[in-house]
Amino acid sequence: MWIQTEVTRQLNIKYPIIQAPMAGSTTPELVAAVSNGGGLGSIGAGYYNPEKFRTDIAKTQTLTDKPFAVNLFVPEYNEVTSTQIDRMKEILTPYYEEFNIEPDMPTIDKDDTFGQLVKIVIDTNVKICSFTFGIPDPVTVEKLKEAGVILIGCATTVEEAVLNEQAGMDMVVVQGFEAGGHRGSFAQKTLQSTIGTMALVPQAADAVAIPVIAAGGIMDGRGVYASLTLGAGAAQLGTAFLTTKESKAPEIHKEKILNSTEMDTVLTKSFSGKYARGIRNRFIDDMEHHQEDILAYPFQNQITKKIRSKVAAEGRNDLLHLWSGQGVKMSRDTEAKELLKDIVDQVNKISGNEAYHR
Amino acid sequence: MWIQTEVTRQLNIKYPIIQAPMAGSTTPELVAAVSNGGGLGSIGAGYYNPEKFRTDIAKTQTLTDKPFAVNLFVPEYNEVTSTQIDRMKEILTPYYEEFNIEPDMPTIDKDDTFGQLVKIVIDTNVKICSFTFGIPDPVTVEKLKEAGVILIGCATTVEEAVLNEQAGMDMVVVQGFEAGGHRGSFAQKTLQSTIGTMALVPQAADAVAIPVIAAGGIMDGRGVYASLTLGAGAAQLGTAFLTTKESKAPEIHKEKILNSTEMDTVLTKSFSGKYARGIRNRFIDDMEHHQEDILAYPFQNQITKKIRSKVAAEGRNDLLHLWSGQGVKMSRDTEAKELLKDIVDQVNKISGNEAYHR
Repeated sequence: MWIQTEVTRQLNIKYPIIQAPMAGSTTPELVAAVSNGGGLGSIGAGYYNPEKFRTDIAKTQTLTDKPFAVNLFVPEYNEVTSTQIDRMKEILTPYYEEFNIEPDMPTIDKDDTFGQLVKIVIDTNVKICSFTFGIPDPVTVEKLKEAGVILIGCATTVEEAVLNEQAGMDMVVVQGFEAGGHRGSFAQKTLQSTIGTMALVPQAADAVAIPVIAAGGIMDGRGVYASLTLGAGAAQLGTAFLTTKESKAPEIHKEKILNSTEMDTVLTKSFSGKYARGIRNRFIDDMEHHQEDILAYPFQNQITKKIRSKVAAEGRNDLLHLWSGQGVKMSRDTEAKELLKDIVDQVNKISGNEAYHR
Repeated sequence: MWIQTEVTRQLNIKYPIIQAPMAGSTTPELVAAVSNGGGLGSIGAGYYNPEKFRTDIAKTQTLTDKPFAVNLFVPEYNEVTSTQIDRMKEILTPYYEEFNIEPDMPTIDKDDTFGQLVKIVIDTNVKICSFTFGIPDPVTVEKLKEAGVILIGCATTVEEAVLNEQAGMDMVVVQGFEAGGHRGSFAQKTLQSTIGTMALVPQAADAVAIPVIAAGGIMDGRGVYASLTLGAGAAQLGTAFLTTKESKAPEIHKEKILNSTEMDTVLTKSFSGKYARGIRNRFIDDMEHHQEDILAYPFQNQITKKIRSKVAAEGRNDLLHLWSGQGVKMSRDTEAKELLKDIVDQVNKISGNEAYHR
């Protein structure tokens, strides 16, 4: 008999363990491995176009008949002037020259990609959809609910958790300071909204009636069980799954995580215009002098994208977004199935045996 | 039968729960209430002179025959020029004028107060001594060990935990990002060394053989049991005990904590010259424009001290150091004995009953 929570019951999964939807790094193989193992895999579709989204969902559905989630980025409408774009292009010129590439021009999504992806969720009969960077509009929420899709929001503060509940999310991921990759902040986007997981989870659990899913710094069975103890109905792990064989993060990214310490990550807006946690490298250092010129999301993300693709293709990590949480020393080079099994075994050991405690 | 750990065994206490040594806010009544209740109380003697230290120890010993700890600040030798002092006095002039007071002049401790306090620990037969802001010199360590005193260090990174172990500390508090009051950093003092408790505890526990004590964002039984789950041998709670009746923090400080949210605290060097977490107020905001002029610890602490005493005496909190961790919404206005009992009851409930999990 395993630990049943409101989350495992609603999602119809065996273990309260969720593989975080790391946009750009998940594969159908990773998602299916986690779901087949009894957890919940998530397709990180944040940057997907409709075609790629359909392909990944179809592939995942051939690999598993268990529930899995898809994650979408809620679009936001920031403004950017051509003067600001020109300034950032100037700052990035040394990199463009280094790789002999033309700058990407930031563009505005006029195709309602988000709306198209939502339609695909419904059409393909995906039953769990999580969101990052905000709460979808009421019409979208209603449409998905009518189709029987369970909705999972993301919050980095208690207030954001409450906003998710009020908007009708069925559950909410609360993402602590330790978390790798983008912060899901939307109501509070400053660094003041960085609350450690240990403090955030119980305060959020006290404030909302919907189940809370803990995220940030959780890497193994100790973190999973601690999350449940703090009042969460499940734990969501990103970095731990990023270094698995099935993740499509570049090898240089995985290697860097596997060889770093807990002090090597920083929060930076330099890659995308939004705060995200990654391992400090040359690009982050270089851009520290240009913080006031960073374009708003998603424009900064677009304008740095080609440089990052190019440097990754060349096997270099100095200009790459090396997203990682603070639990790096617990990262492992293994298969997702194996990682999940070890986490489950460790939780069994902890929950069944008090002598485990030091 | 309660959860026994290496910490409870070595310290000869019933519960793996430690009241953090909040310098300036502990009283013999608070320390004794926690120790009598089965936890470990700690006298925060960081700013004490020998006389005050002797008095507090003697009083505590009349109130409890259970073990308690004393906490000392390891002295450090920073430099400050008279030009720097004059500049800071100029910045603080509006406050001096507001209260019609003369500036405090920063001074260097020439009396080896630390050495005197160490001698008192031995003379008064105190059996547990914890340290903040560094590791004492080898001669002091040896002297205390010969007297049978158990030594507890403090670390904010895995590396600092290892340094504590190498220096002969018997156990080490690992203090996460969420923690209120001063950060115990010594080897890494930048904001880059801020690691969330959820990530820090297991990584430190993996790196050292001595027992680890979790601190930072822990406010109730959920946090205590989560700490044990993460690999700690005990949990240390500061803010939770700061608002108890027995704490001597000013009422305006307690009230502010009781009425704040998890987003209201920030890390600031403005009061003391060292990073500490407190609730944002006028002084922190004002001093944001003068960060490059903040004096090194302990000089900044000395030069702002009179202003803080004065404002507290007048029942105002706008210029006071409102130390607090990020778990504020879980703070309670109660007696220490009651708080400890509730924490113990909550741990019993969690550890004995899986249905507790949401």
